[in-house]
Amino acid sequence: MANDTIQRVRTPAADERRFIEEALVAVGAPAGDAGLVAEILLASDLRGIESHGIARLRWFYVDRLRRGTIEAHPHATVLRETPTSLAIDAGNGLGHPASHRAMTRTIAKARESGVCFTTVRNSNHYGIAGYYAMMALPHDMIGISSTDSIHFAVPTFGRDKLLGTNPFAYAIPAGDEPPFVLDFATTTVTYGKLEVYERMGKPLEPGWAVDAEGATTTDATLARHSGALLPLGGYGTDGGGHKGYGLGVLSEILCGVLAGGAFGRGLSLIEGPEHVGGHTGHFFGAIRIDTLRDVADFKADMDAELRTFKSSRPAAGHDRVYVSGEIEHEHEIENAAQGVPHLPKVWDDVDALAAELGIRPMQRL
Amino acid sequence: MANDTIQRVRTPAADERRFIEEALVAVGAPAGDAGLVAEILLASDLRGIESHGIARLRWFYVDRLRRGTIEAHPHATVLRETPTSLAIDAGNGLGHPASHRAMTRTIAKARESGVCFTTVRNSNHYGIAGYYAMMALPHDMIGISSTDSIHFAVPTFGRDKLLGTNPFAYAIPAGDEPPFVLDFATTTVTYGKLEVYERMGKPLEPGWAVDAEGATTTDATLARHSGALLPLGGYGTDGGGHKGYGLGVLSEILCGVLAGGAFGRGLSLIEGPEHVGGHTGHFFGAIRIDTLRDVADFKADMDAELRTFKSSRPAAGHDRVYVSGEIEHEHEIENAAQGVPHLPKVWDDVDALAAELGIRPMQRL
Repeated sequence: MANDTIQRVRTPAADERRFIEEALVAVGAPAGDAGLVAEILLASDLRGIESHGIARLRWFYVDRLRRGTIEAHPHATVLRETPTSLAIDAGNGLGHPASHRAMTRTIAKARESGVCFTTVRNSNHYGIAGYYAMMALPHDMIGISSTDSIHFAVPTFGRDKLLGTNPFAYAIPAGDEPPFVLDFATTTVTYGKLEVYERMGKPLEPGWAVDAEGATTTDATLARHSGALLPLGGYGTDGGGHKGYGLGVLSEILCGVLAGGAFGRGLSLIEGPEHVGGHTGHFFGAIRIDTLRDVADFKADMDAELRTFKSSRPAAGHDRVYVSGEIEHEHEIENAAQGVPHLPKVWDDVDALAAELGIRPMQRL
Repeated sequence: MANDTIQRVRTPAADERRFIEEALVAVGAPAGDAGLVAEILLASDLRGIESHGIARLRWFYVDRLRRGTIEAHPHATVLRETPTSLAIDAGNGLGHPASHRAMTRTIAKARESGVCFTTVRNSNHYGIAGYYAMMALPHDMIGISSTDSIHFAVPTFGRDKLLGTNPFAYAIPAGDEPPFVLDFATTTVTYGKLEVYERMGKPLEPGWAVDAEGATTTDATLARHSGALLPLGGYGTDGGGHKGYGLGVLSEILCGVLAGGAFGRGLSLIEGPEHVGGHTGHFFGAIRIDTLRDVADFKADMDAELRTFKSSRPAAGHDRVYVSGEIEHEHEIENAAQGVPHLPKVWDDVDALAAELGIRPMQRL
């Protein structure tokens, strides 16, 4: 999120979408797939989650398609299907279209059966977990989404990197209030945060990272180059680190083991040119609210519940209590109106990519 | 958990079960209900979760039945039912039998439909969340359980107590390995931990609690008498406190709002004689593994996944990496063989209760 003071450059949302689509088509992706990636990267940037938007376009998607570690024309297959379940092999294609189609089918099946869970194996990085969970909202369903990821974190009292940032997302509709959207990594912070702190020469907060021996450290350089992240709750068990560790394993069980895909030391995701495709797995769910309660009553009570928190007294030094998804919702409204903001470094990369691929650069506002 | 050095007294598991059952029958509970409470409190003590076992028998169940704030003969009703869902009103009865029956039906429905989610409203304290999730294990299902609770914690950057310890539990079967059982409060610590630290005169860890103004504090007395607990992740957002806060709200949405029961400021649970019954809600789920993957393959891979963590290198100063549920599983084996351990204070309470109710005291080993 834009919690710094660096000036952003803005672009119209429609032009960011156009740019991403053209870039992916230029490296061989079908137009339909490119459009879905564009939609989801744009949604991330609109919601203020800059780390998962266009900033990843080159390194995570364009370059991997060019190198062929992601299949531009994957052969996806259904491994197992019942009225309440779907298990898909994504054929090592782009993660976003595979996931968008998986969640679309999950919702359709939940409409018939009340609930559906879906696994996707042999996929790739899918962007923000929350996007897929939020797809359930217009259907008056609760949406669930998780993905495993490259291993950045140690288990509690361990020193081997065995856990990804493994996010979980839950989206629940309200009435007049914006929906409740909880989308969180099961590590305390992301790897990107270590990079930012190293660049600023700032010590890390305790509970974020360990050194090579698994001992807690606040040295960003040490943590980044020979250490690892810690699970949500921090080092050891005092702050509940074993809970974040358990949630991280839960994600890998659902997205890896249950999906019949890569997991454990076999999940050898690597960033950069050594990246191996198809190791990522996802988990999706949709639950129809009216199978448990009248939807209008539920939404009215959701408004009341969310307002209870929002209208509660802030702590000393703070002026507002937020609920999950509220800040992102406000970013979305602001950025849709004023243009999508990007860091100067991201603009430079996007401009260079445009020149390289021979497509029209993204429009600056 | 028994992470202190106080000497315990042990009792045979069968006699603890007998004692709890007789105590509840003595205050008017039907034998079947009393047996289920006994089964679940005993399971908690066997697993080393002393806070949720017989230690609560008098204050949470016997006294509330005597005062009539919990109905001994509740009239439970089904509010809504589909092949994949069940919504129950527990009629303000004991939480354990209502939850045991709800999870039993959840599993039966999941056997037919592949998956089922169940809400229970107008219930009471149900003990350990993990028990109900674990009921799914012998059926080769993933079990899910959550409950809302008395409000002890503030939202991120807030000062009003609006969140319970709101635990989530997930149980997933393995093959030769013990199952993966993640059962965690969405607060950093429980209220009981503040009491223990106050008694010892020890400062709290940062991230556990706030004072009356919502500012972080390590003063146990201050926190306990005028402050509140913090969500998992601690104060503010640096350690991910907003994630624990979101998980706490998620639990209250599922157990309160979706169940059509009490939530928000209407969830006025109070301990002690002012307790009002029927404000607690629960959420249960069961997912049949074979709807997504062959069970034998899944279990073999679960063994491999759990062993990956267990065989990984421990951090400096530690000799072992555990997985979720492993420590409790080892307690269970030890305590079933050697007798269930209890603190001297708990024994005194149990002996006093025996005399008061005219039932045979629990046997000391």
